[in-house]
Amino acid sequence: MKIHDLPTPALLIDGPVLEANLDTMARALPGARLRPHVKAHKSTAIAARQRAHGHAGFCAATIRELEGLAAAGLGEDLLLANEVLDASRLGALVRSGARVTMAVDSPETIDAARRGGVREVLVDVNIGLPRCGCAVEDAGRVAAAARRAGLEVRGVMGYEGHVVGQADRAAREAGCAASMERLLAAHAEVGGEVVSAGGTGTWDCNRAATEIQAGSYALMDTAYATLGLPFRQALSLLGTVVSVSPGWAVADVGLKALGMDHGNPLVPGARVLFCSDEHLTFVPGQDADDLGTSPIDWSCPARVGVGDRIRVVPAHVDPTMAYHERVHVVEGDRVLESWPIDLRGW
Amino acid sequence: MKIHDLPTPALLIDGPVLEANLDTMARALPGARLRPHVKAHKSTAIAARQRAHGHAGFCAATIRELEGLAAAGLGEDLLLANEVLDASRLGALVRSGARVTMAVDSPETIDAARRGGVREVLVDVNIGLPRCGCAVEDAGRVAAAARRAGLEVRGVMGYEGHVVGQADRAAREAGCAASMERLLAAHAEVGGEVVSAGGTGTWDCNRAATEIQAGSYALMDTAYATLGLPFRQALSLLGTVVSVSPGWAVADVGLKALGMDHGNPLVPGARVLFCSDEHLTFVPGQDADDLGTSPIDWSCPARVGVGDRIRVVPAHVDPTMAYHERVHVVEGDRVLESWPIDLRGW
Repeated sequence: MKIHDLPTPALLIDGPVLEANLDTMARALPGARLRPHVKAHKSTAIAARQRAHGHAGFCAATIRELEGLAAAGLGEDLLLANEVLDASRLGALVRSGARVTMAVDSPETIDAARRGGVREVLVDVNIGLPRCGCAVEDAGRVAAAARRAGLEVRGVMGYEGHVVGQADRAAREAGCAASMERLLAAHAEVGGEVVSAGGTGTWDCNRAATEIQAGSYALMDTAYATLGLPFRQALSLLGTVVSVSPGWAVADVGLKALGMDHGNPLVPGARVLFCSDEHLTFVPGQDADDLGTSPIDWSCPARVGVGDRIRVVPAHVDPTMAYHERVHVVEGDRVLESWPIDLRGW
Repeated sequence: MKIHDLPTPALLIDGPVLEANLDTMARALPGARLRPHVKAHKSTAIAARQRAHGHAGFCAATIRELEGLAAAGLGEDLLLANEVLDASRLGALVRSGARVTMAVDSPETIDAARRGGVREVLVDVNIGLPRCGCAVEDAGRVAAAARRAGLEVRGVMGYEGHVVGQADRAAREAGCAASMERLLAAHAEVGGEVVSAGGTGTWDCNRAATEIQAGSYALMDTAYATLGLPFRQALSLLGTVVSVSPGWAVADVGLKALGMDHGNPLVPGARVLFCSDEHLTFVPGQDADDLGTSPIDWSCPARVGVGDRIRVVPAHVDPTMAYHERVHVVEGDRVLESWPIDLRGW
């Protein structure tokens, strides 16, 4: 099948770019040094490619993501890098043979793990992002409480999410180092073998973690594309121009096909005016948006006609994937495979 | 079942508020005076409630929405209020017995309708929003071309989307009147019985349209809640507090559960700091966000604990519905029904 045969809007992965991204990461962080985060792509097919590149452990943000990974035979070492109060579905996974570790940061989450049938936990530590995780000075107490509840404490996790997007590399390195100092202080009180942290933005400057939780590196987006990372944008949307007026054109890639929290998508070679639910209004040719360092290999012509196809690059990969049922793996103008985005929902 | 038994995040509709909204609209715009737009809720169950309130015609933004409506027995008078280049699936619907009308604004969309097997069209006219629709002065030519192609031209449609959200009622009325002047000028050249236009924001000031294409009125959101309309917010998300730190709390309602193009959701009685993919970080009690005129009947306590449930009101209903597989209809703390959101995707 050719790309032109796809109904639109269609989510596309450039297959060679995906493979190159996976390869670059696997060379730098081989095997268990990387614990790919599936929340970014929500697809067991992509997780299987990551497994083929040597990474046997995964982390996830939802119970359904873990269930899907286990059902796909990828349950060797699963981490729910998130707090939940009802762990009964995780316990069912454990009983079915998957290895499941859960993040805990409070007496309530410890109790949920124990009651739900989870056997292993990491102590989640707040290392600067105002989100989940206990205070560094409480980490030892949380670990002790987990052990008293009969849980195996494998170590600590934290996420320096407040620095992963910092454009200045030196500031990113310094912020990461400060965060990891906090995580290592907590680890000294908690014990265990695992120090799990990091993300795509700190993949090569976080040298303290035993494993890096990167997800976006596989597909990338316009937000991460500005950081000068060695990963290229593999994800784009194929749209059809459905209407042309003097001064603008409209394609069928609306905001229900795009994660919008990081702002508008880019159309290489054109200027995006705005997104509606089902439409993208853009100006071909003039005043093109800044594309960062790694645009896709396509540029909008200065004139488009009704029926022409365009390519749209999403600003944020994670919520974009979560809107689509499937993604098409392409090389040039050929569609190689279509993969279900099967880890959506809760 | 009680609300507390639902796994979170859970999308909730306040059943009595939905019914009151449907009732208010059906009294003002009975029967065919309203053509409910299903893109806002993407659920045949809600469309069936709108049908029960007397509205037999629907409009939609995607082919899948029309297919789902027809499959649910709601295919009496379906309008694709959008341009498409491949109308073959619409033609299949026509052959199966549904009445399908398609918007056209160009020779290419007319040709698509003819080749696809669609028999009836509306001429889509641009009346101020830079999106689809032909120029007013081209509408007669588009209609003539459609008739030459053997299509029945039922009339015109337009959307004053640039004014539906204007906070000042007088400005909204004036903008609507100016837009409708353009649409009526086009209609004079096109002919036909239908003048289809409007939305929730202009539901009672658009007096020129023969039918109003309102969708958001049924469920509402924080954006429309500021306009002083007689429709109340029926939609909210139920979340669980999964982590509490000094200064903030975190619930499991992240941006993959929310349309984010209109900004952060509201938590009544609390201040939202930010949304991450799977988390909402908020400050209970202090500096509550402005809730507009019609908050849900719940307010966040000044102190929350891990395991507490909270209610989150989305900023934009359409892309929020599109993320969820189902919505639960509630009254007080009881879950009355669970409806699939079955018109998602493309």
